[in-house]
Amino acid sequence: MTSDKILLNHGAGGKLTSELISNLFVKYFDNEILRNQTDSAILNIDSRLLAFTTDSYVVDPIFFPGGNIGKLAVCGTVNDLSVSGAKPLYLSCGFIIEEGFLFSDLEIIVKTMSEEASKAGVKIVTGDTKVVDKGKCDKIFINTSGIGMLDERRKSISFGTEINVGDKIIVNGNIGDHGTAILCARNSIEYSNSVLSDCASLYGIISNVLNTSSDIKFMRDATRGGVATVLCELAKKQNVGIEIFEASIPVQESVKGLCEIFGFDPLYMANEGKVVMVAGKNDADLILDVLKNHEFGKNTAIIGEIVETNKGLLIMNTEIGGRRIVDMLTGEQLPRIC
Amino acid sequence: MTSDKILLNHGAGGKLTSELISNLFVKYFDNEILRNQTDSAILNIDSRLLAFTTDSYVVDPIFFPGGNIGKLAVCGTVNDLSVSGAKPLYLSCGFIIEEGFLFSDLEIIVKTMSEEASKAGVKIVTGDTKVVDKGKCDKIFINTSGIGMLDERRKSISFGTEINVGDKIIVNGNIGDHGTAILCARNSIEYSNSVLSDCASLYGIISNVLNTSSDIKFMRDATRGGVATVLCELAKKQNVGIEIFEASIPVQESVKGLCEIFGFDPLYMANEGKVVMVAGKNDADLILDVLKNHEFGKNTAIIGEIVETNKGLLIMNTEIGGRRIVDMLTGEQLPRIC
Repeated sequence: MTSDKILLNHGAGGKLTSELISNLFVKYFDNEILRNQTDSAILNIDSRLLAFTTDSYVVDPIFFPGGNIGKLAVCGTVNDLSVSGAKPLYLSCGFIIEEGFLFSDLEIIVKTMSEEASKAGVKIVTGDTKVVDKGKCDKIFINTSGIGMLDERRKSISFGTEINVGDKIIVNGNIGDHGTAILCARNSIEYSNSVLSDCASLYGIISNVLNTSSDIKFMRDATRGGVATVLCELAKKQNVGIEIFEASIPVQESVKGLCEIFGFDPLYMANEGKVVMVAGKNDADLILDVLKNHEFGKNTAIIGEIVETNKGLLIMNTEIGGRRIVDMLTGEQLPRIC
Repeated sequence: MTSDKILLNHGAGGKLTSELISNLFVKYFDNEILRNQTDSAILNIDSRLLAFTTDSYVVDPIFFPGGNIGKLAVCGTVNDLSVSGAKPLYLSCGFIIEEGFLFSDLEIIVKTMSEEASKAGVKIVTGDTKVVDKGKCDKIFINTSGIGMLDERRKSISFGTEINVGDKIIVNGNIGDHGTAILCARNSIEYSNSVLSDCASLYGIISNVLNTSSDIKFMRDATRGGVATVLCELAKKQNVGIEIFEASIPVQESVKGLCEIFGFDPLYMANEGKVVMVAGKNDADLILDVLKNHEFGKNTAIIGEIVETNKGLLIMNTEIGGRRIVDMLTGEQLPRIC
């Protein structure tokens, strides 16, 4: 560790987070399941495969264009289970609430959670509520943990071990919407073409794909750290080269513009309704069709492929014809994005 | 709800917590599993019975005599699974950390968690770290969720549906230690006979009992709200009368003294290593022996029994020969006790 104190960047999903996980959590909690560092832990309980995941949500502001902290807490955990190839079944839900928080706001959040859980077909079955004195937390933090059931045939999807040269990289639409929506909400930016968070439960669209093709090699939702972080981690972990093409990456004009103004790169911006898939090249067009036919996949695009060269690296082919290495994020794009 | 704002008491484990759960969470998240309001949700996944539970820990101070927030986070969730009759298998762990928190303190906490997980035979398999700006949370909050495997024969233990008149109420030692330790730590009280938290993983002692007797009708760990709350809830839920005998309830002299000074009742004080059991009268002495032979059960006592009269009520037979109804806690004993 380079600092003796925890910095905001330790929670940003980039290099420092990765170091903290490896040097502290994996070191002390050491076990084979954790060491895999998959989004969901893959458990074998009495010959049944389960996916198990947890996330705490501390997003600021708690209400934002396109959602609220409750919607995020359900969708985020449902998505972590879904991208592991599992069918999400049950969620737990732990609230930490600041004394004086409006009951009416809590009711809106809980109602949203209930609606999102119904949409995703999951049940919230256990919970916990803690209240801390005023000033000791910021309004409300929510933890959701989730359990899903995993088919043996889909076990490798979390790991990406079946990836081959020639496989295609697919993303189910415009990137950077969630990060940009939070950025605008936090800075009270209002304009005619305002950006909504893409926060959504991806179980439906993912199961459509899994039911159509057995050639999905890897999935990961591109939350903190964005699409770039997902692909950097994958390239490194599976020691493959990944090339992406800037011209193919779907980004809304308004997101592009706002990112330019604030000096952010959409490729690192958080999404809450985007999955990065790696699929065998023969099925890629079929998968594209299935994704495009779903309301959360209209702007799906093939953005790159697995290549023979530059093992362990993510290479961007820029719109103006250049090539550059895309590295893990070292600084913080935005704190408390989720 | 009587207030339009969340009060500290909503998190105290007493009447207001109970109202919040019923009027908000159970209302909106409505499903049969949650409606049972067992400590752990009992799930049937592909014909396997699992227990699933979550707790967020916000204890203040984070280091206290007898433990720290990390020890609490592992033991608390292990205990919630254990009292449902399940074998705890896997934990998740979500950290919310204040910017500037000392890395060395985090390392102590994580090391303790690892040690407690080993003792309890559970693996920490998935996690999440969020960092919030300085002043937006109080040092560190930890959520742990847990999964355990449950034997069909033990399914009713969470519910207490098998309870009969004549069954004995057993507690595995001195009550009120954890609450008193936190009280002293928070008020910087130091004296010759200082009280340590009883924070401990109860899986070992509980499994000894379950392996000896099949006559355990109910278990619950007596955390927030103490032994009184566990028994009030049980009396109401199963519509049975419960009588307890003040003279039989084990309480350390120092805890009694401190509770008198601060105006607290040990019966409502939080414990983190105490289980309240209801057992058939024929096996009660056998169970007593097994508990007393374990390091966490030396002061085990039978403190009462299920009676025919006063259905739905908890009655205390006082040391001076009186009788009184013990009700659910309406006020807050101590906030942020766990």
